[in-house]
Amino acid sequence: MVAVKDADFSDVDAVFCCLPHGTTQEIIKGLPKSLKIVDLSADFRLRDISEYEEWYGQAHRAPELQKEAVYGLTEISREEVKSARLVANPGCYPTSVQLPLVPLIKANLVQPKNIIIDSKSGVSGAGRGAKEANLYTEIAEGIYSYGVTRHRHVPEIEQGLSDAANSKVTVSFTPHLMPMSRGMQSTIYVELAPGVEIKDLRQQLKLSYEDEDFVVLLDEGIVPRTHNTRGSNYCFINVFPDRIPGRAIIISVIDNLVKGASGQALQNLNVMMGFPESTGLLYQPLFP
Amino acid sequence: MVAVKDADFSDVDAVFCCLPHGTTQEIIKGLPKSLKIVDLSADFRLRDISEYEEWYGQAHRAPELQKEAVYGLTEISREEVKSARLVANPGCYPTSVQLPLVPLIKANLVQPKNIIIDSKSGVSGAGRGAKEANLYTEIAEGIYSYGVTRHRHVPEIEQGLSDAANSKVTVSFTPHLMPMSRGMQSTIYVELAPGVEIKDLRQQLKLSYEDEDFVVLLDEGIVPRTHNTRGSNYCFINVFPDRIPGRAIIISVIDNLVKGASGQALQNLNVMMGFPESTGLLYQPLFP
Amino acid sequence: MVAVKDADFSDVDAVFCCLPHGTTQEIIKGLPKSLKIVDLSADFRLRDISEYEEWYGQAHRAPELQKEAVYGLTEISREEVKSARLVANPGCYPTSVQLPLVPLIKANLVQPKNIIIDSKSGVSGAGRGAKEANLYTEIAEGIYSYGVTRHRHVPEIEQGLSDAANSKVTVSFTPHLMPMSRGMQSTIYVELAPGVEIKDLRQQLKLSYEDEDFVVLLDEGIVPRTHNTRGSNYCFINVFPDRIPGRAIIISVIDNLVKGASGQALQNLNVMMGFPESTGLLYQPLFP
Amino acid sequence: MVAVKDADFSDVDAVFCCLPHGTTQEIIKGLPKSLKIVDLSADFRLRDISEYEEWYGQAHRAPELQKEAVYGLTEISREEVKSARLVANPGCYPTSVQLPLVPLIKANLVQPKNIIIDSKSGVSGAGRGAKEANLYTEIAEGIYSYGVTRHRHVPEIEQGLSDAANSKVTVSFTPHLMPMSRGMQSTIYVELAPGVEIKDLRQQLKLSYEDEDFVVLLDEGIVPRTHNTRGSNYCFINVFPDRIPGRAIIISVIDNLVKGASGQALQNLNVMMGFPESTGLLYQPLFP
Repeated sequence: MVAVKDADFSDVDAVFCCLPHGTTQEIIKGLPKSLKIVDLSADFRLRDISEYEEWYGQAHRAPELQKEAVYGLTEISREEVKSARLVANPGCYPTSVQLPLVPLIKANLVQPKNIIIDSKSGVSGAGRGAKEANLYTEIAEGIYSYGVTRHRHVPEIEQGLSDAANSKVTVSFTPHLMPMSRGMQSTIYVELAPGVEIKDLRQQLKLSYEDEDFVVLLDEGIVPRTHNTRGSNYCFINVFPDRIPGRAIIISVIDNLVKGASGQALQNLNVMMGFPESTGLLYQPLFP
Repeated sequence: MVAVKDADFSDVDAVFCCLPHGTTQEIIKGLPKSLKIVDLSADFRLRDISEYEEWYGQAHRAPELQKEAVYGLTEISREEVKSARLVANPGCYPTSVQLPLVPLIKANLVQPKNIIIDSKSGVSGAGRGAKEANLYTEIAEGIYSYGVTRHRHVPEIEQGLSDAANSKVTVSFTPHLMPMSRGMQSTIYVELAPGVEIKDLRQQLKLSYEDEDFVVLLDEGIVPRTHNTRGSNYCFINVFPDRIPGRAIIISVIDNLVKGASGQALQNLNVMMGFPESTGLLYQPLFP
Repeated sequence: MVAVKDADFSDVDAVFCCLPHGTTQEIIKGLPKSLKIVDLSADFRLRDISEYEEWYGQAHRAPELQKEAVYGLTEISREEVKSARLVANPGCYPTSVQLPLVPLIKANLVQPKNIIIDSKSGVSGAGRGAKEANLYTEIAEGIYSYGVTRHRHVPEIEQGLSDAANSKVTVSFTPHLMPMSRGMQSTIYVELAPGVEIKDLRQQLKLSYEDEDFVVLLDEGIVPRTHNTRGSNYCFINVFPDRIPGRAIIISVIDNLVKGASGQALQNLNVMMGFPESTGLLYQPLFP
Repeated sequence: MVAVKDADFSDVDAVFCCLPHGTTQEIIKGLPKSLKIVDLSADFRLRDISEYEEWYGQAHRAPELQKEAVYGLTEISREEVKSARLVANPGCYPTSVQLPLVPLIKANLVQPKNIIIDSKSGVSGAGRGAKEANLYTEIAEGIYSYGVTRHRHVPEIEQGLSDAANSKVTVSFTPHLMPMSRGMQSTIYVELAPGVEIKDLRQQLKLSYEDEDFVVLLDEGIVPRTHNTRGSNYCFINVFPDRIPGRAIIISVIDNLVKGASGQALQNLNVMMGFPESTGLLYQPLFP
């Protein structure tokens, strides 16, 4: 933090802020107003300060900055990001959930209730801290759910879906830890609005994303795989009919470290700076 | 098959039949009536022959044997297994789903509709056949859903839950392939019957399984992990409140190769033969 | 340690001591002389106290106990173990290296010089401590050598081989960390004594181990695999001709947590107590 | 092959030939003489046709092309590659072995005898064919040696080292299969020439590679890790003193699919075409 205080930003236009949750509020307050900032922490993601305090267990120390911050789910908020000074970069789970759901809820195709989100994440989502829970021997060859219904990404997801629905949405969200380093899948179980069919969902997603570089609706029947995103900024989405009439299954996959973190941060910075949006992001997935 | 025909069964009381789906119908027809048989294939699991033909794409060649077969989910059908000559050993997914759900549906605690089952399986469930899809390079460090809504275990699950509900149950079932050899988790999202609470579900499961050797309701709040079952015949279950009022999340884990296959087969044989039920099954999980 | 001090050992015949290296010297000094002890730490493995001090960087605090301790490589030192009060349980690498080499060196079939040992270990060998180096993300999908020529198991290996050779042996030993939880392979490159052939090595190993429960010489040409030992107390060994005339390649595999640790400890205890040596150890390897 | 016959190469300057071993000899014979070709198969790697026939079990069908082919270990043979029409792209193991050893043998620093090569490879080296041996369940959580002393890369390694030594070199080469998709390490045990020290080896490698983009001698004491090369065209090398006087341990790591295959192929093509050598190859390693 001393380093930040003494840093000379006179020749700097923009910065990424990659510090632990809870620590960037103070630091960003101290940065020159001329700097454009993409904050990768969770500090400025929740518009409602009381939600922040409930889920993160501490008072927010920069509420005025929170008012200014733009939630940077690039494809959804590109216009706001363009003119933002401070962008709160979305969490990985919220990115994988909102990209498919926001357009469908906005278009009233999916009911904004009883949304069941079963997410699966590689272990890098937990960071590089030396925790017993993340040792190779604890993770390899096994899976488990963690933070059942209580994961901190819940309010972020509900904020985005509530905005889309124009009403308060409460979701069922269960994250699972996978024996892999990178990759994230959200399998989302939804009720269709009356009269709506699977092809309507596909049509809406096609419309929403056909001009996007990084969000791709797969051809009918093709299952998204995390392998197809590893090391890349892509989000792949598809929609499937459920056996239960009136329901659909939506699957989205991302690399949690790229579209779910640093890649989307760079995408946001490109938008803020007026650079071509894919600058530095055209890596292809690495497989195997 | 020649080997089977020429085999001398005069000193044999019981056999396991571990042949591919579709091949055991003929073979079992040819075996002596005095033999007790546990069939690990799917050939005799579905009581409704027309369901078998729909999901397996071929006519059933031993419908009279099908009538005699007992579906061997041991804890649920122990009495029928005791006197059975032919036991159809359950599939791995159906075992992980029915053990927690059958008692709860029978007791009218969980609504028999809109049941969402998100299952995750180690790759050994696919057998040892040399398929590109199951190469190390295809599986390691990635996940995907397969057979979305169309997996052959669907009718087996629906048969068991319909029996419990005494009405036709249709489920949403999505299996996912995990980068691990063994282990299976079903995360099950249900609607509670009116007035029912989480503690009622836990109480019912406690009652149902407190005298069982292999099915264990974990203490409140403890998340089942596949690691805790690896190499063992255990099924661990727990129930969690959902964020959405009136809903619950049920998690069960098994080793798909043991309680989901050979272990349950031996358990059934022990019951059929009058041996202590845990004979040969008291292996502890191997971790790490 | 208080717990140990206050413990009542009046009804106890024998104990395993499973404490970190460096801590058991004091503790064992304080235990009743009537207790039989198998110490799983490295504290009593090196007969030469000055070697201990050089490799472990501290003075030995129980040199008189060190004199009494028997190095418990069961198959090699069974007679001494039988009458021992304190057994120092061997390290995992030394077990995998000495079991094949000691009989061959004793019989003058392999030259006691230029012995090259390239060992590969699963990460559980490093314990369960929360170290960044052992996180899933650091270990999965990659390998590296560690402690090149400086691993603490070097003096233990050299002590055993020097005993066998009746002269000071210096080895080249390079351990490698594998992306797996359990399992250990030592690939050992040796020079044959003049006139010796591969079949002579196989013949000697057959003689040495044909009556053993846990050490197995595989049939000619069969490659030992760590999978064949996982979860079991077995050590599998084989010998192969090298392309370079006059040389051989010896491969041994164990489960580092069983024959390389707790399994051999129990084997030693069985010998000390006069129990059948395989009591509690007849687990079969778990595969996959 | 029909496709190749009917193809129109009039606007094509160069091609990669990525066909199975044994099939490219005929195909390349049929291609226009104006085409520059990098062949990724083993068909043209061995100058001595009789060696090819011994190790691959079939007569060579294009011996005249073999005479023309240049062995494309880029850093070692850059000048020949520049003017080559047909480049035989090296195998993965030979690349990892020759890059460190060729300069050291040429400079008479390492003795060209008793060279022990213990190599470890990710399973992608075996290709994507549907073989039981490469299923996830066969590979995960276990290791083994394969092709002990008989791997087809032996003659390729010996050819390169014999050229460097100006005398026939016979090596001990043992490949091991690792539970990982990509990555290769060769741990090489050598005898130093009289009077030579570790620093002389480091000095020679520094001289040989300091101007190279893709071959890097690490700082003293730093252990090369396959993680540092994954998805990149780098080869990292280091040299360590052995405990046995007069010996050294050399470690090199590559990504077997990049510097060990397609990356080096592109590097060769760049040289043949006069493009900057790193064109298309500046990917950074993907970690984790």
